[in-house]
Amino acid sequence: MTELGVVRRKIHRAHRASVDALAAFGVATVHEAMGRIGLMKPYLRPIYPGAQVSGTAVTVLLQPGDNWMLHVAAEQLQEGDVVVAAVTADSNDGYFGDLLATSFKARGARALVIDAGVRDVKTLTEMGFPVWSKCVSAKGTVKATLGSVNIPVVSAGALVNPGDAIVADDDGVVVVPAALAEKTLAAARAREANEGDKRAKLASGVLGLDIYKMREPLEKAGLKYID
Amino acid sequence: MTELGVVRRKIHRAHRASVDALAAFGVATVHEAMGRIGLMKPYLRPIYPGAQVSGTAVTVLLQPGDNWMLHVAAEQLQEGDVVVAAVTADSNDGYFGDLLATSFKARGARALVIDAGVRDVKTLTEMGFPVWSKCVSAKGTVKATLGSVNIPVVSAGALVNPGDAIVADDDGVVVVPAALAEKTLAAARAREANEGDKRAKLASGVLGLDIYKMREPLEKAGLKYID
Amino acid sequence: MTELGVVRRKIHRAHRASVDALAAFGVATVHEAMGRIGLMKPYLRPIYPGAQVSGTAVTVLLQPGDNWMLHVAAEQLQEGDVVVAAVTADSNDGYFGDLLATSFKARGARALVIDAGVRDVKTLTEMGFPVWSKCVSAKGTVKATLGSVNIPVVSAGALVNPGDAIVADDDGVVVVPAALAEKTLAAARAREANEGDKRAKLASGVLGLDIYKMREPLEKAGLKYID
Amino acid sequence: MTELGVVRRKIHRAHRASVDALAAFGVATVHEAMGRIGLMKPYLRPIYPGAQVSGTAVTVLLQPGDNWMLHVAAEQLQEGDVVVAAVTADSNDGYFGDLLATSFKARGARALVIDAGVRDVKTLTEMGFPVWSKCVSAKGTVKATLGSVNIPVVSAGALVNPGDAIVADDDGVVVVPAALAEKTLAAARAREANEGDKRAKLASGVLGLDIYKMREPLEKAGLKYID
Amino acid sequence: MTELGVVRRKIHRAHRASVDALAAFGVATVHEAMGRIGLMKPYLRPIYPGAQVSGTAVTVLLQPGDNWMLHVAAEQLQEGDVVVAAVTADSNDGYFGDLLATSFKARGARALVIDAGVRDVKTLTEMGFPVWSKCVSAKGTVKATLGSVNIPVVSAGALVNPGDAIVADDDGVVVVPAALAEKTLAAARAREANEGDKRAKLASGVLGLDIYKMREPLEKAGLKYID
Amino acid sequence: MTELGVVRRKIHRAHRASVDALAAFGVATVHEAMGRIGLMKPYLRPIYPGAQVSGTAVTVLLQPGDNWMLHVAAEQLQEGDVVVAAVTADSNDGYFGDLLATSFKARGARALVIDAGVRDVKTLTEMGFPVWSKCVSAKGTVKATLGSVNIPVVSAGALVNPGDAIVADDDGVVVVPAALAEKTLAAARAREANEGDKRAKLASGVLGLDIYKMREPLEKAGLKYID
Repeated sequence: MTELGVVRRKIHRAHRASVDALAAFGVATVHEAMGRIGLMKPYLRPIYPGAQVSGTAVTVLLQPGDNWMLHVAAEQLQEGDVVVAAVTADSNDGYFGDLLATSFKARGARALVIDAGVRDVKTLTEMGFPVWSKCVSAKGTVKATLGSVNIPVVSAGALVNPGDAIVADDDGVVVVPAALAEKTLAAARAREANEGDKRAKLASGVLGLDIYKMREPLEKAGLKYID
Repeated sequence: MTELGVVRRKIHRAHRASVDALAAFGVATVHEAMGRIGLMKPYLRPIYPGAQVSGTAVTVLLQPGDNWMLHVAAEQLQEGDVVVAAVTADSNDGYFGDLLATSFKARGARALVIDAGVRDVKTLTEMGFPVWSKCVSAKGTVKATLGSVNIPVVSAGALVNPGDAIVADDDGVVVVPAALAEKTLAAARAREANEGDKRAKLASGVLGLDIYKMREPLEKAGLKYID
Repeated sequence: MTELGVVRRKIHRAHRASVDALAAFGVATVHEAMGRIGLMKPYLRPIYPGAQVSGTAVTVLLQPGDNWMLHVAAEQLQEGDVVVAAVTADSNDGYFGDLLATSFKARGARALVIDAGVRDVKTLTEMGFPVWSKCVSAKGTVKATLGSVNIPVVSAGALVNPGDAIVADDDGVVVVPAALAEKTLAAARAREANEGDKRAKLASGVLGLDIYKMREPLEKAGLKYID
Repeated sequence: MTELGVVRRKIHRAHRASVDALAAFGVATVHEAMGRIGLMKPYLRPIYPGAQVSGTAVTVLLQPGDNWMLHVAAEQLQEGDVVVAAVTADSNDGYFGDLLATSFKARGARALVIDAGVRDVKTLTEMGFPVWSKCVSAKGTVKATLGSVNIPVVSAGALVNPGDAIVADDDGVVVVPAALAEKTLAAARAREANEGDKRAKLASGVLGLDIYKMREPLEKAGLKYID
Repeated sequence: MTELGVVRRKIHRAHRASVDALAAFGVATVHEAMGRIGLMKPYLRPIYPGAQVSGTAVTVLLQPGDNWMLHVAAEQLQEGDVVVAAVTADSNDGYFGDLLATSFKARGARALVIDAGVRDVKTLTEMGFPVWSKCVSAKGTVKATLGSVNIPVVSAGALVNPGDAIVADDDGVVVVPAALAEKTLAAARAREANEGDKRAKLASGVLGLDIYKMREPLEKAGLKYID
Repeated sequence: MTELGVVRRKIHRAHRASVDALAAFGVATVHEAMGRIGLMKPYLRPIYPGAQVSGTAVTVLLQPGDNWMLHVAAEQLQEGDVVVAAVTADSNDGYFGDLLATSFKARGARALVIDAGVRDVKTLTEMGFPVWSKCVSAKGTVKATLGSVNIPVVSAGALVNPGDAIVADDDGVVVVPAALAEKTLAAARAREANEGDKRAKLASGVLGLDIYKMREPLEKAGLKYID
């Protein structure tokens, strides 16, 4: 339940090896492996292309125009975490910059996912600290009102519990509930094993219509070909 | 007329050599050559910078959250085509990824223009298969409801008939009706021939005010200079 | 006061050396140095990453779909200027391309900031002429209706007077009133001097909670830690 | 084909009695009767609630910030027409107000559908002249650049040919190609005849699950009930 | 946890009398009583002004362009419920119209809250069945893919568990977790009791500065008055 | 110049009788009388239809999520003022509700114009206190960070100086600089005097083409009529 002014120190992180292995499969495959759910809204975009990470969520609930709780969150970070931040109202301010990134990185964080803005993106890119955000904004924030750390948050349309597995790449961000990390990894592996053969056939010019045996269902659905 | 459940196999493609020659002029010049019309909405953006292509349109009408007809379209592709996809409702899902791109490329397609989302953009970039889309989204789609292939579609605010010439670059996407491809190419050539000289003059510091003889019309319109 | 059909030739430009020195501090620092104000809306984005400039504003008020006054503005440019353009109505058209950029560059301009669209972005990138804009659009414009040059304009939510200092980088754009350029530079310097030490501490794992002495105010505000 | 600077005086209007009869069925039913196509984008909204009209399209292509062609269109109006306006670029200006509405009404027009803004909405409401628009804006326009009247236009995402039937109500706007007006009317009638009985059953508490015999397909699709 | 293809029949509904009593306080007061949290995004708007309701949530997860599960949900409704619908992707289609409203009303539902579009809004208004939605759209939907009923959903940025209390009025929609309904009601009562006196003072011209004793903290914060 | 933490007590209000007389002309006419400038962005919408007001601006600069300065502004109000509020960052929160409206009304204010959200809109409507806002949101705000009162602000894209005349109706909001109030009133009167005759002619079926003598310039511009 959402509660303000609370920091949970002990959280249950998803199975480390499974979380770490998820990055390689990418967001599209992981979300398919979960049954096509768990995605954050597509307006979240990486500040630079090419980053592909997975990690365990440390969640932060911020107040609009106030980044105090990001400093509080830094103390709760462990190696392999991804910080996931939400704001109690729509906001485009720049809650995070190179100083906080330096701190987060030093404490073991791999990335930030924030349903708001970030700044210092040139330096963040040079540091190799990836951020998925709603926008880029130089607008600074105050430190005046309490939010919370490590409570369930809704960020960019997805529910994130502390400890959940987060996978992020150029396609977006997906949330895997901690309890499903291992099962999802297995499903992602199965899915990908299946794709290599298809890719080779498609590359040789064989049609998906034939590989996936779509001609019959298309005909049943009433598709007509006209010359 | 928009009709669902139909695939037109024989379409009249615009004059190949003219279509191929249009790419070099770029979208801004081609749209000017047409009389400043034919552009798709500027929210269509390339998934990576630098691609510049032209081709003949194979059109696809999709249902929301359903990419079935993209597989059907693959069979209708010829060397030099550009797939132009529309959806019957606003949608941000990821209708297209690296497997379909592999198939489209193998069948001769040069690019995809889609008034919706794409995924696997990192792989698409590595493959060099350019896509102009409304957004990037990992959200997968189903294969359950019929749309159509090679009917007239409205995509990103522009009417596209199968066989029309499509030109796309970092500035956006323009549609040249098949019957106007050669005339438009000629107009684009004339326009560009005219620009080289102007560019040199402007680079030397001569003002557009003088090159375009704007001082008199500006004065007539009432422009006042104040010190 | 906003007046149409006027070009002011003599404007008071901010102190040159101060303006030039501001670029190195970047937009986030400069806006903090001003007391966290002066930013343009974050929807303004650079057409390519990495540019970081400062300059003195030559302002332009355009009519929708009409770029006539950009040609008029070219004549008023001096070495070290940044053109700041506004439109009297919301518009996404492409008011500016490589020919105008060639002219602006030849006349000494360092960049364009425009609350509308630009085109020829590939060429602009190759030329190294940076633009911060609301969007990219190939849509051309006419030359039929008067606006003004070097009057106060509101562009992307910020008031810009001719001669003000403009700083722009990957984080956005900030406006420094001419009279405040030197004071702001001093404040930016003080701020940055202060940051080096903090960065080193944060990089070594010391928490912002301790560096900024936040533990007491957080406790006073009622923050609770739960295991 | 889109051509600028053209007014077509003779257009083929859809069958009058059929067009007139369509209003009563409303937009949702008509679009379903067409096979769930033909809708304009849902961002078009009526300036006051409760209007429900149908008519034959007189189309107008406008240039951004310029309403000249609406005056030209007035002369082409006949009793029972609905004016459908598009702009060659995204625009939110107020192209239409009470004077033009007075003229349009006097010439027989029933409504305006415009992919841009309108003004004088209080007076338009008092006059009972309904408008479906993208927005309301007091921003006035100039009369300087030619567009066209009665050419095919794409307005709010839909292709509209002069003479097509337009149906508009609180749910939005749908376009019925002239050739399909009678067939669509028949389909709308059949659909509505079918709904009365369903409505009575649903009102008595019978479930759609049973009326539409959905239980079996839901079970086949794998739906599980849990207590 | 989000699971597709599941209908939970037994849910724990929030305390009936408390839920019913919440409506009178309105959304703004209830959200303040919860500590300023729980609001759905402000883009949710009522289809007609003046409705003010509270009820217990029956949740529905829909697939894009598919309203099958709303029919499934109808069977799970009890007197005093409010249906809260989410879609697995952004969508503006019209998932709900007068037939479903007739059914929902007959089964005891008081309102629908949907993070997507609705249609037949004129009839819904006449029926007095209020809907809070993202938009109005006539676009119909199919019945082809399973979602779920009575699982936790994220709708318009808020987590809703089946049985939670929902309060909706012209200001928006707030979610009160079932376990907090009584406590929130008490807090809302206390808050409102406190407001009557303030309102009278403010109406007589006494300033909030004095009622809330703000002058001292404003001075401490450094506020300067200038003549 | 924008300065935080400042309240200006003495401001120069525009000529009272002129300001009061502007309301009757409406926003569209006043903005035309000014030369087609001065409008706030059209996303500002009235919370209820039909209000038409004019008044003198008392300006407020707010911090995101913080409405402290609205309480400070109440003390500076005089009979006939309109409060114009801006926020230092994009924000959709509900900064203003029925208690502040009670206070503002008691102190003489006629309306609020705010580039953010409001709440209690049902009560505000019953009170007859009109508000033009970016959105409606129940989200409450804190009182922690200083802004300013009666400094120049940019609100919804327009520069507003304290004392300027504000006119607002269903078409939007226009700002008339204090020094131009009388001149603008005269121009509005002249414009309206001119419209009555035109309206009568248009209502009788005479075309704008003839009233405004457009046929010749249209022909010169190249307009072609086709049968």
